[in-house]
Amino acid sequence: MTAISQFSGRNIGLPPPILLALLYGLLALSGMALLKLPFAATINLTWMDALFTSVSAITVTGLVVVDTGSDLSFFGQAVVLALIQLGGLGLMTFATLVLSSLGLPIGFEHRVFLKEDLGQTSLSELLSLVKIVLRVVLLCEAMGVALLCFVTVPEFGWGMGLWQALFHSISAFNNAGFALFPDSLTRWATNPVINLSIPALYIIGGLGFGVLWDVSRHRRWNPLTLHSKLMLVGTVGLLLWAFILFAVLEWNNPGTLGALDSTADKLWVSWFQASTPRTAGFNTTDISQLHDPTVLLFISLMLIGGGSTSTAGGIKVTTFIVLLLATYAFFRRRPRMRAFGRSLGFEEALKVMALLTIAGMVILTGMFLTTISHDGDFLNLAFETVSAFGTVGLSRGTTGELDTLGRLTIIAIMFLGRVGPLTLGFFLATTTPTRIKYPETKIYLG
Amino acid sequence: MTAISQFSGRNIGLPPPILLALLYGLLALSGMALLKLPFAATINLTWMDALFTSVSAITVTGLVVVDTGSDLSFFGQAVVLALIQLGGLGLMTFATLVLSSLGLPIGFEHRVFLKEDLGQTSLSELLSLVKIVLRVVLLCEAMGVALLCFVTVPEFGWGMGLWQALFHSISAFNNAGFALFPDSLTRWATNPVINLSIPALYIIGGLGFGVLWDVSRHRRWNPLTLHSKLMLVGTVGLLLWAFILFAVLEWNNPGTLGALDSTADKLWVSWFQASTPRTAGFNTTDISQLHDPTVLLFISLMLIGGGSTSTAGGIKVTTFIVLLLATYAFFRRRPRMRAFGRSLGFEEALKVMALLTIAGMVILTGMFLTTISHDGDFLNLAFETVSAFGTVGLSRGTTGELDTLGRLTIIAIMFLGRVGPLTLGFFLATTTPTRIKYPETKIYLG
Ligand SMILES: [K+]
Ligand SMILES: [K+]
Repeated sequence: MTAISQFSGRNIGLPPPILLALLYGLLALSGMALLKLPFAATINLTWMDALFTSVSAITVTGLVVVDTGSDLSFFGQAVVLALIQLGGLGLMTFATLVLSSLGLPIGFEHRVFLKEDLGQTSLSELLSLVKIVLRVVLLCEAMGVALLCFVTVPEFGWGMGLWQALFHSISAFNNAGFALFPDSLTRWATNPVINLSIPALYIIGGLGFGVLWDVSRHRRWNPLTLHSKLMLVGTVGLLLWAFILFAVLEWNNPGTLGALDSTADKLWVSWFQASTPRTAGFNTTDISQLHDPTVLLFISLMLIGGGSTSTAGGIKVTTFIVLLLATYAFFRRRPRMRAFGRSLGFEEALKVMALLTIAGMVILTGMFLTTISHDGDFLNLAFETVSAFGTVGLSRGTTGELDTLGRLTIIAIMFLGRVGPLTLGFFLATTTPTRIKYPETKIYLG
Repeated sequence: MTAISQFSGRNIGLPPPILLALLYGLLALSGMALLKLPFAATINLTWMDALFTSVSAITVTGLVVVDTGSDLSFFGQAVVLALIQLGGLGLMTFATLVLSSLGLPIGFEHRVFLKEDLGQTSLSELLSLVKIVLRVVLLCEAMGVALLCFVTVPEFGWGMGLWQALFHSISAFNNAGFALFPDSLTRWATNPVINLSIPALYIIGGLGFGVLWDVSRHRRWNPLTLHSKLMLVGTVGLLLWAFILFAVLEWNNPGTLGALDSTADKLWVSWFQASTPRTAGFNTTDISQLHDPTVLLFISLMLIGGGSTSTAGGIKVTTFIVLLLATYAFFRRRPRMRAFGRSLGFEEALKVMALLTIAGMVILTGMFLTTISHDGDFLNLAFETVSAFGTVGLSRGTTGELDTLGRLTIIAIMFLGRVGPLTLGFFLATTTPTRIKYPETKIYLG
């Protein structure tokens, strides 16, 4: 309670997790109001449609109940884009702020002095951090726009082409998954420029600010932090795993890869679809046509998500790696988790268990409520629920069919999936030292 | 490696996990051979049917591809019963042996001296332990037979009635879930004697040998071990939770509770069905008629399972409680897990994470393979997979429809679900002390 009560006077004024939840809630409601304006849409948006779209944008999820490209006007699309940018930026800033206060080396000790006690962070320090993050974000997005223009300008002319490039670049870097076409990016399924630039944007955006800063400063492997090393190895590993498995499972599926003629085209789509379930949420093939085993692969990838201090969601790659390290340590019969010459301690273990428990409960409750509200195929409902939790945005089409209870459930899960892990990060950042020491004991497990 | 290489000479001779897996494998194959004998069945059993039945019995799962009561002869049923008894007894003995070598107070320090190093346990010590366990098991089962006779003898006469009572008592205490009727115990759905004695048997059998011994010795709350306290509180909590939720969800379902007239009958069935998914696997209503949300409830209960050193499966109640304690500690911002004035340490955390990771991988792989092999409703396939992993035996009817790959997958999962957690228990029982100490570091999570 000490840390929380210190939030007063010239400091931020509220405990960060509550501040963050309030901020996201307020932005979501403002977005809803703006989208309800008569000139925001070309169709008659209900309040529920507007709320759903706004929450989906601010949480950078990308699940939709209206078609962003045709049902929203240019103004409506601009509102969505602004919400995406604010949502993504807020994420990166807040996560960096919270996690750097854990005393983690994020690489700019000399530029912003982030105090150990989060409650002591002043508004000016926060703004300095936002500026640094903003510079990184805008640089990446600008490069994305430049690359995407090579495709969009020839196809749509300068005006519309630039807008397309801007929208998809921002949506990609922020792992938002919103696209201006009803079938996402399927029209460019085999375009090499799209297949390289869009994934580059969302993979970089999904690595996390800490990793980007660390890599840009050192440019060599050895001096990188353990976090950066684990994130880079984990990301490459997951990309390879998903790429191979997707290609093998879908190669002859007439609804997806089987419809493509050349091996190169099949490999492009496999690459794109293998990289997108970990939070990006774009698609270049019909997700509702995937075989059931592929759907399971996607669910597991959506659950893992991307990196901390990034625009990605899920339980995070590092959480997944800690689980693997714990399993390895267990089988080697060593009471230590190790990687790259460092060991991980009890607090990490505690946090992983808490994260998993909460993720499990949120997802189970979500599936529970959606199965009550909607009598559809369970695999599809499970897919949409995990997609909302990981703020991925891939859909097998069920989201559009949900009734009010179902939509409210998905809205709540998107919100929890976004704000939840950051809030959890705060709790360990302000650990209360234990005064009473209980005798340690053992219990039977397994 | 030291612990393993010490298994030689006058000791058991093989590392316990391999010994256990070999033993169960050998028993399963012997069971298959016996069931293939012409007089074991009234129908023509295939090798696959015989193997499936044998593995289901030795792992005390209860998933069936033939009807135990009508497709098997008296001899066949006796083989199944013997496999169940050996499987359950082996479980309790081995688990107690492994876990007591962790230095846990299991309550008979003066009777059998179980050495810290499992490799030093001699065959005579093992036999002493088996004798103690056997005495407890036979006592419980005999009381079960006596109670069940009040129902079965008036209905079937002395000969058949005694056999029915014996079969169902042994099947219940060992959490095997095999019944002599194709609809399990539905014929006695509203019989108070059945509704009290059968659940009493499987709940007591599912608490674990350590808890039974602890409780019978102290008969008061305070001197009980932390493990016993957590098991008792956890079991009562889970029973209440499942009872209320089942009744609420199914009250008006015409396929289940809705078909019953009186409130008392509905409550009896709710009680039975709420207690059975945590490994027992009997049913008194049609599982395939459950609403989807109830199926999710069942899946979560089947995953949690019963107690360590018991005849139950799953990740175990204590593992689930550690997850809740970790989450609670996290939100209280305390770097300690506590319960009843004791704290739990890093090894418990490590083991929970390893158990969850392995359980997740086994179940995911199982769902993956069954969805490849069978094009049915995913929720049903997920149900059968988790039922096999938790060695529960409840079925929504899909197991009978599976092809060879599907059946082999279920066989493998039953085997892993049974032998796996015990094997894992062994690994921490023989932790190698770390020689090199790596510097501890932090990474971003969540
Ligand atoms: K997304
Ligand atoms: K069972």
